[in-house]
Parts: sequence; structure tokens; C-alpha cells
Amino acid sequence: MQIRDEASTALLTDQYELTMLAAALADGSARRQCTFEVFARRLPHGRRYGVVAGTGRLLDALSGFRFGPGELAVAAKFLPANTVDWLREYRFTGDIDGYAEGELYFPGSPILSVRGNFADCVVLETLILSIFNHDSAIASAAARMVSAAAGRRLIEMGSRRTHELAAPSSSRAAYLAGFDATSNLEAVRSFGVPGAGTSAHSFTLLHSGADGEHEAAAFSGQIDALGVGTTLLVDTFDITRGVATAVEVAGPELGGVRIDSGDLGVLARQVRDQLDELGATGTRIVVSGDLDEYAIAALRAEPVDVYGVGTSLVTGSGAPTAGMVYKLVEVDGIPVAKRSSHKQSRGGTKKAVRLARATGTIVEEIVYPAGAPAPATDGFQVRELQVPLVRAGEPVDGVATLARSRELVAQGLVSLPWEGLKLSDGEPAVPTTFLD
Amino acid sequence: MQIRDEASTALLTDQYELTMLAAALADGSARRQCTFEVFARRLPHGRRYGVVAGTGRLLDALSGFRFGPGELAVAAKFLPANTVDWLREYRFTGDIDGYAEGELYFPGSPILSVRGNFADCVVLETLILSIFNHDSAIASAAARMVSAAAGRRLIEMGSRRTHELAAPSSSRAAYLAGFDATSNLEAVRSFGVPGAGTSAHSFTLLHSGADGEHEAAAFSGQIDALGVGTTLLVDTFDITRGVATAVEVAGPELGGVRIDSGDLGVLARQVRDQLDELGATGTRIVVSGDLDEYAIAALRAEPVDVYGVGTSLVTGSGAPTAGMVYKLVEVDGIPVAKRSSHKQSRGGTKKAVRLARATGTIVEEIVYPAGAPAPATDGFQVRELQVPLVRAGEPVDGVATLARSRELVAQGLVSLPWEGLKLSDGEPAVPTTFLD
Repeated sequence: MQIRDEASTALLTDQYELTMLAAALADGSARRQCTFEVFARRLPHGRRYGVVAGTGRLLDALSGFRFGPGELAVAAKFLPANTVDWLREYRFTGDIDGYAEGELYFPGSPILSVRGNFADCVVLETLILSIFNHDSAIASAAARMVSAAAGRRLIEMGSRRTHELAAPSSSRAAYLAGFDATSNLEAVRSFGVPGAGTSAHSFTLLHSGADGEHEAAAFSGQIDALGVGTTLLVDTFDITRGVATAVEVAGPELGGVRIDSGDLGVLARQVRDQLDELGATGTRIVVSGDLDEYAIAALRAEPVDVYGVGTSLVTGSGAPTAGMVYKLVEVDGIPVAKRSSHKQSRGGTKKAVRLARATGTIVEEIVYPAGAPAPATDGFQVRELQVPLVRAGEPVDGVATLARSRELVAQGLVSLPWEGLKLSDGEPAVPTTFLD
Repeated sequence: MQIRDEASTALLTDQYELTMLAAALADGSARRQCTFEVFARRLPHGRRYGVVAGTGRLLDALSGFRFGPGELAVAAKFLPANTVDWLREYRFTGDIDGYAEGELYFPGSPILSVRGNFADCVVLETLILSIFNHDSAIASAAARMVSAAAGRRLIEMGSRRTHELAAPSSSRAAYLAGFDATSNLEAVRSFGVPGAGTSAHSFTLLHSGADGEHEAAAFSGQIDALGVGTTLLVDTFDITRGVATAVEVAGPELGGVRIDSGDLGVLARQVRDQLDELGATGTRIVVSGDLDEYAIAALRAEPVDVYGVGTSLVTGSGAPTAGMVYKLVEVDGIPVAKRSSHKQSRGGTKKAVRLARATGTIVEEIVYPAGAPAPATDGFQVRELQVPLVRAGEPVDGVATLARSRELVAQGLVSLPWEGLKLSDGEPAVPTTFLD
């Protein structure tokens, strides 16, 4: 049940990819050179930008996309022998270019271009989309929370509100987008995200007896074990009494208090005043409990030091999947595209540049045919958005380290025009022009 | 990156569980006998019932919840040596009672009662909640789709819109709730869910050349490889032409056609008429593309044979997490509960019964203290809802097989009063009475 590098990712695949493979091997079309493109037709309702995330995890998952005996046994139940033989030898040997992890994206941005023969590329559809749709949804929501928090510390604590194996990836995506720490220990191990967390209400309630509650005993126990720098949860019974008891037990050097219920703004002010009166002027106030980017922003004027965010983070704050698709756009050098209603796409392998003013503020994205010359850019600063990610099946060295991806999100947020950072519903922060 | 039974699940845990453990071991409170209860304070907005799912996966994950050298190395970075030593020997040795997998639940239903000493139970909080909150969210949404489909076939195809390792669990939860098949091959392997899937638009587009498109060649290739019983995707270019070509190539014995875009109701009628005129009266119509329970219900009058459901299924159709919590309710026989605002809970270990009329239609759920006699039930049929799931750390044999859980959902849906199956926003289908 745990993420293991050596395990196969090959069955994280939709059956139709392998039936298409069988048909394409049989009629010879499997050898045609193809480009598949990953893009989002639109951003989630009202969002002004998205954050590309998942690249680092995809590069790891690619190396595990091999069919061993267990995977082949499943495939053999519905595939002809020659297809099973082909899968036995499969490893991806194509190239992938794409937006760097942490880059902002907009509707139609060619986030990945996957190139190789049809057989090589078609089997990766589900794995690529699952990773990117999940991680980008979380990172995109997280980035809004980061800008709402305006520099205050953010802890991701949503593991319990998402699939147990999605949780570490959510922590990674949140950290990438600028969160400071996570509650999830597998994310600490797998991705090196800093860990955080001290206690829950159960620990205080545990110190109850036939004679009633003993909050002071719980606080003493925690401080003895974790030191005076710990954060005490003060809202199990009565917050004012909880704060008084906390400082009584810990002294004014207490690291922090956490409030997990009630009107957090009012309570934060009361608790700050109370702490200051008790001389605990350095004790931080941590708030948690159904926070999202709007609640975080609404607390900006209050004396909150740390936000703990759970459900809304891991569910993408209303947009739990990024809605990216994986579409065949070119076959043997010829652009192809679905034509029927509502789901048209643009054929051909593409590149993209983003234009910025001298100040660094971005003004436009231009998507153009990969074979065409770069578009004229009227004196703006120009940055090419696709970078090489995979060459002949091998990840390009150092192309998606978490530290670098985190830096890129921070740079991206700074580059947005001011309307782009508004939390209210709006249009994409910059327009995208598609050149034929 | 794959689900492996032998791997440890122990770090799928929030850090605070282990810091609480350290403090509880230090002050002796770790040995107190506790009951933790899993319940949902409320159903997602407007929902009339929930479906318990995750039990089978939890029982598997429990046996993998052991701290090996890798897990201990992470723990040792923030825990004292005696706590690390304790974790080295840890396996859960307590008892768990709970609603059977597939049982319906309502606000406040005591879905699980986890009993043991504090240390034994506290470390399982995140694992239990992650599994139940995910799987129950998916199963609850899926059950609404199943009742909307009114007996027509449903295929789960949402893997690409959720985390790659959440996808197989989503398939399992959908199947449990009454779906017929899944696109996800890992779900086929891990859980025995029937697989389904034939082709995507890319396969048709692949058969393009400098001289244009060759839909007939794509259809031929697919039929040669997969047989005439396959389902051809007919909406890549023009649906009417696509259907004509499909029957021309496959003959009237063609298994099915799939429509993935446009006004599915109008198109299904047109395509049915066209197929019938061509003599393909047995060819099934599969529809897909942004379906949810409302769209499924809206197509009830149309000649649709199979629904393919993706995004809305794996994102819980607006409720991606079930919102269950894990609360300490009893310590050494004494009920305990948090008292501060908004998040009060009811102390004490509980049991629950569900009352039904002689027809089997349920009328009420009664939650009562585990130590009290079963409540008076006025001549109604009475069913006790909690069953033994784990005894002394070991799963009770055969208690959560997928086949049995699936049967239980079907029985549960039949037992609901008719308003309970309405898709519109409403109150819980039956009231719950809490006895002190």
C-alpha cells in the first residue's frame, strides 16, 4: 500500500489503451510517429491561472512503467499473444517536452508534448493524466492559499480527507506551491517536505477521569515530552481557560496555541490579547478548521501566525481535478484533430512563449506551431515555456526537483498582473493567442 | 508506485499522532482503555444517505501497519527513543466493530468503534479516515448514479481524473455501489472488478494521412483485432457518417457504438434510428462525456444501453470527501466529548439499530449507549448495524468481501423510502434518534 520505486506502474492504465495497442500492432499503424499533447481546455470555473505539478512524480513513475509477469497475466486475459509479447519488452523510448514543473498555465497551454511512435505513447495516457490532473489541481488551489496568506506560515493537514496514497502527493503539491510544512509522514519520507504537528483533542480528552477533565495534566504531559516550544490545542473545553492553563503550565515561552473551532478571527484577537497580558508575547497563534483561500484572506487583519489547511487543500478547493486531456495532435508530420461538436482541439505539435513587460509582469501567452519561427514579440521580454523533460525515454537530469519547482511557482505568482491574484471569479490572468 | 500488500502503511499517518503517542507513553496515559468512533457530523449538502465503503481495504491496510527500519528512521527524527522502540513492536491488538461495508449511513451513525488502549488506537486515525472518507465519498456518489441508471449498464472510466493510486480504489467503490465494470486495469487485478474499454479518438485519428482521414480503416483495424462484438467510437468526425461506416465495416452484428460528445439524448435517438434502419438492431449505444447522476437520469427516456462515467464519479459528484471524523468518545469506561463551539460530539461507546416496516422500508435509525439495553421498537423490524470487524487485531473472516458489500448496497437502496432516492437536495432519508 505504499509508494515503492521498484514496483510497476503499468496497470495504472485504462483497458482501452491496450486494446488500441493490439489493433494498431495488428494493422501496422502502431509504428507511426505521433505527438500527443497534454492541455486543459479551460481553467476551473473563475480561476485566473493554473500551476503545473506532477512532472517530478511522472518522471519517477515512467521508469516503473514496465510489464512484469503479474501485469502481463492481466493483459493476457484480453489481448492477443503478440501484444503481450510487445508489452513484455516495453519501455518508453520517446521524447517529452513540456512546461517545467511549477510553471503557470492557461487554457490551451501545451503543457506536455509526448513524442514517439503510437504504441510507445498511447499506453501512457492514463498515468500521465492521473498524475498531472491530481497534482496540478492541488498545486493550483494551494497557490491561491499561499497568496492569500501573504507570507504567513501554512501547514498542509488534509491527509485524512483524501485517499491515503494521494495524501503524500497532495502534501508535495502544496509544498511546491509555497506551503511550509505537512502533517503527512510519508510526504516527509518520500519528498522531503518538512513535517509538523503536535496534538489533537483526543490527547486532552484522554486526561479525563471520573472526577472530570484535567486539561492541565494533558498540557504538562505534552510539554514534558515535546518541550515548551510545542503548540498546545486550547479549544477542547473553554478557550479562555485553555489559554490561561497553557501559559500557567508552559510559562511565557510557550511556542504556540492552536484554535480549531469557533469564529477564528474574533478568537485570534482575544487569545492574542490574553497571551500578551500573560507575558507570552512570542507565543504564536495557529488556526485550523475548514479554512480555504477565502477564509485565509479574511483573517489577514487578525493576529494569526500559522494557518493549518486540510479539506479544501486536498480537494482542490472546489476543483478536485485539473481537467487536462491527452490528445493525439500529429501523425507522421500531419496535424490531426477531432472535429465533432464541443470538444474540438487544435492539431499539430506546438510550442509556446510567454511575453512580459520590462518589470517582469506577464501580458500574453502565444502558442504556435513547433515548426514555425518564433512569433514577433514587439519588444516584450520573451520566455520559451517548453523545456526538454525526457530524451529517448530517460528523464533529463535535474529537470524537476521539488526545490526548483517551488521556486518557479513563487516567480510565477510574482509575474502575474495584479488582477491575476484576485480570489474572485474572473478570466485567465493573461490572454493566449494561438497562431496557425 | 503500486499497491503492494507487503509494504508498510505506517507512515500514511499524521505527525501529531506520533507526538501524542510520545507524550502519552511518557505520562502513562497511553495505557488507558479507549473507544474512538468514526462518524460523519452531516451528509454532503442535500444528500439523503451515504454508503459505507473502505472496510475491506482497511482490513488489508491494517496488517501492513507495521514500522520497519525505513519507517522508524523517519519517526526517530522527532521522537524519543522509547517511542521509537514502542513503534518497532507495534501491531494493532484491539477490536473494531462497525457498520458492514456497503451499509447505508446517516449523520451521527457510529460507523466504526475502535477499541483498545490509547496508544494502540491513536496511531490509526489518519489511515482509517483517509480510506473511509475517500471510498465512502465515491461509493455514495456512485449509488446515486446506479439508481439514476435504473438497471442500465454503468462503466467507471474516471482514472485519469484522480490520483493514479486512488483510481483503483475508486473503481472498487463504484463497483461496490453497483457499477458493472471499470476501465482501470489495476482494479481488475487488485479487486477483481470486471474490465471494459475498446478505443479512443486517437485510434481513429491515427488512421489519417496526407490524403485525409480514414475512419473505415480504423474501424477495420479495431474489428480485426477485437472482433465484431467491440464498441466503435463514432463521433470523431461526423456521427451519422461514423455510424454508417461502422455498420458497413462491421456488419449488423456490431456490438456497440460510443458517442462521447454533443447532445447525447438527441444523438442517441438519431443513432438508434439509424442503426435500426441499417439492421443493426442489437448494436448497443454507449454514451460518455461529463455524465453525472443528473445527466444519467435525464437520459432515462432515451435509447441508451450503457453509461460511461468519469470525472463526476471519481470526484464524488461535488462531494470528494465524506467528512468522517475519528473521535475519542470513551476513556476507561467514562464518556468524553469536546465541548467548545460547533464541533461538539456525543461521548460514550455506541450501538445502532435501524427500524423498518414489514415491507422492508426503513423508517428510523436509533443510536444508543453500548451498555444500555436495545431500545423499544414498537413492532418494527429491527436490525443491529454494528458487526464485529476486527478481534484482537485480526480481521474477522469474510466480513468485508466485495461481493457481499455490493449486495448490501443493493439491499440498502431497496430499503430506502421513495423520497430517499430522489436526486434533488433534501434531508436524510430517515431521522436518527440519539438516546442517552
